[in-house]
Amino acid sequence: MEKDQYYMNLALQEAKKGRFQTWKNPMVGAVIVKNNQVLATGHHIHYGQNHAERDAISKLTPEQLFNSTLYVTLEPCNHYGKQPPCSDLIVKSKIKRVVIGQVDPHKLVTGKGIAKLKSHNIEVKTGVLTSKIEELNKFYNYFYRNNKPWITIKEATSLDYRVSQNKNTRTNITNQSVYFRVHQERANYQAIMIGSSTAIIDDPSLLTSVKTDYPPIRVIVDRRGRLLNHLDLKVLTDHQSLTWIFTQNKDLIRKKFNDNIQVLLMKSNELSEVVNKLAQREIQSIYVEGGPTLARSFLNEDLANELIDYIAPTFLGSAGPAGVLPRGNLNLHNVQIENLNNNIRIDGEINV
Amino acid sequence: MEKDQYYMNLALQEAKKGRFQTWKNPMVGAVIVKNNQVLATGHHIHYGQNHAERDAISKLTPEQLFNSTLYVTLEPCNHYGKQPPCSDLIVKSKIKRVVIGQVDPHKLVTGKGIAKLKSHNIEVKTGVLTSKIEELNKFYNYFYRNNKPWITIKEATSLDYRVSQNKNTRTNITNQSVYFRVHQERANYQAIMIGSSTAIIDDPSLLTSVKTDYPPIRVIVDRRGRLLNHLDLKVLTDHQSLTWIFTQNKDLIRKKFNDNIQVLLMKSNELSEVVNKLAQREIQSIYVEGGPTLARSFLNEDLANELIDYIAPTFLGSAGPAGVLPRGNLNLHNVQIENLNNNIRIDGEINV
Repeated sequence: MEKDQYYMNLALQEAKKGRFQTWKNPMVGAVIVKNNQVLATGHHIHYGQNHAERDAISKLTPEQLFNSTLYVTLEPCNHYGKQPPCSDLIVKSKIKRVVIGQVDPHKLVTGKGIAKLKSHNIEVKTGVLTSKIEELNKFYNYFYRNNKPWITIKEATSLDYRVSQNKNTRTNITNQSVYFRVHQERANYQAIMIGSSTAIIDDPSLLTSVKTDYPPIRVIVDRRGRLLNHLDLKVLTDHQSLTWIFTQNKDLIRKKFNDNIQVLLMKSNELSEVVNKLAQREIQSIYVEGGPTLARSFLNEDLANELIDYIAPTFLGSAGPAGVLPRGNLNLHNVQIENLNNNIRIDGEINV
Repeated sequence: MEKDQYYMNLALQEAKKGRFQTWKNPMVGAVIVKNNQVLATGHHIHYGQNHAERDAISKLTPEQLFNSTLYVTLEPCNHYGKQPPCSDLIVKSKIKRVVIGQVDPHKLVTGKGIAKLKSHNIEVKTGVLTSKIEELNKFYNYFYRNNKPWITIKEATSLDYRVSQNKNTRTNITNQSVYFRVHQERANYQAIMIGSSTAIIDDPSLLTSVKTDYPPIRVIVDRRGRLLNHLDLKVLTDHQSLTWIFTQNKDLIRKKFNDNIQVLLMKSNELSEVVNKLAQREIQSIYVEGGPTLARSFLNEDLANELIDYIAPTFLGSAGPAGVLPRGNLNLHNVQIENLNNNIRIDGEINV
């Protein structure tokens, strides 16, 4: 039915208003319609605040709600979290019909919200604009379906696939447009990961230029504890976001840092251990920013879902280290390209 | 004046109809207008046939031509070539006004056609849509202004900038869309050049899929005469276009081939010698298709104007030879990118 798609699309536009503030919650939008009139819209504004359904419902009187249709992009919850269950509120509101964009993959919710509504004789329709809506919370969906975070490898290379002009030096390869693009892109992820070499050679801040109360957590893999000799690095001193360090070094574990910094024990040499620990902490997405050695381990352990290469159309020559080189053959799929003012963004998915 | 631009744009669209058939002549279009009415259009249809002005004029009566305005994308010629001078015809036709897109850079024409018209009191206007029109015959303009051909290096690489999986073997890197794009692209050039290694390892035909009476000439640089041991190669046997071989090998010079093949003496080791000889033969544009060694020489001798890299989003690993690596730093400008069904075309200009 055309009408359902129309109103669901409105709900989708509502959902997007929550971008960058819902943190580990999905973005959700809701629209309440009666007699072909939109009576209220709502969205999940901020982590810990009202869900989209409650936001919309709270704007209406019981008379308005009676016999209305609720369009909501995600299945209403049926459990007590930071908020009481939306399913109860919907039942109580005497809403007659609920149209749902996608079923919630979160195991505390999935199917249960819908079952509750149906058990109260509310008409439920699902599958409206589902693929567009799933794309909106791509990392959230992936995380709860696969119990592991979506991992994107990002690198910046010259056309001859070098990451710098010489070993152990930083070369500014890409332009300002890439700089801004990356600072925006980071805000889509819950964690940014680098290896200790990149931390030490580049001393990056790994911040986002997006206004958000939940900037990505900086994760540094420093197996041998090299950071102990570099305690003035920005990620250890700037208080701009959290920094989590994974290490096998006992001295680093014992080291006292400021409150923004946590040091975590790495028992094995496997990145999968780090990824599992991040998953336990509900990190749904990781943006791996370097260097090539760390990225290679992700590829070789079959942990990466996506690769983004920012290419400057320049040649650095064979004295410089190459970008990430996977062990075997590797093909990217669903490739998207962008021209960033003479630099190029290539983004492709990896079949894992 | 808006009107002049409007009619010149019509002339430009006419000019494009001659694409791939005017050979070393430029594409030219003409429109004849009187009392705000287009009376005739014309274009240079085929090398050796009527020029655009003559094509348009021949469609009208003396009465129609009298006091009319001629829009022509390129300055009318004033010399006897394959055709008598267009300037004389315009004067005789009693055309009152001539609007010209660009001055002809060809030394036999430049400025002379305009001078002739003015000397007969014909009103001449120049500079209408000039930059768009110059783009149409980019290689022709470059050649006559600089006395050397426009040289484009084309390569196909993996994301890690390898041209094959192993030395001395051919790897099909790019997809069918790239194949078709390259077969189209070749028709824009008057010559395609490869080195002897590429000829021997890949055995390419170097043909275009475009219908044209002037397919690009295949030029092979074979300094040492290695082709003598590979006389069954397609470019030597297929009769599909001309093949010119540059060599220092006396036996190869003396070798009898079929009529489509010419062997030319290379006195030095410099590519500039080859390029100069091609320029003498009025080759206005060269598409250098490999391999990396030949391309590198072009870059190192500062002979290349443009580089096109077709990238497959795949990794071939460091056992394979790299794409062209210039000696020093090199930046591409005016970069254009295209997504070819998951493969990427990067095209940039080189400041020479």
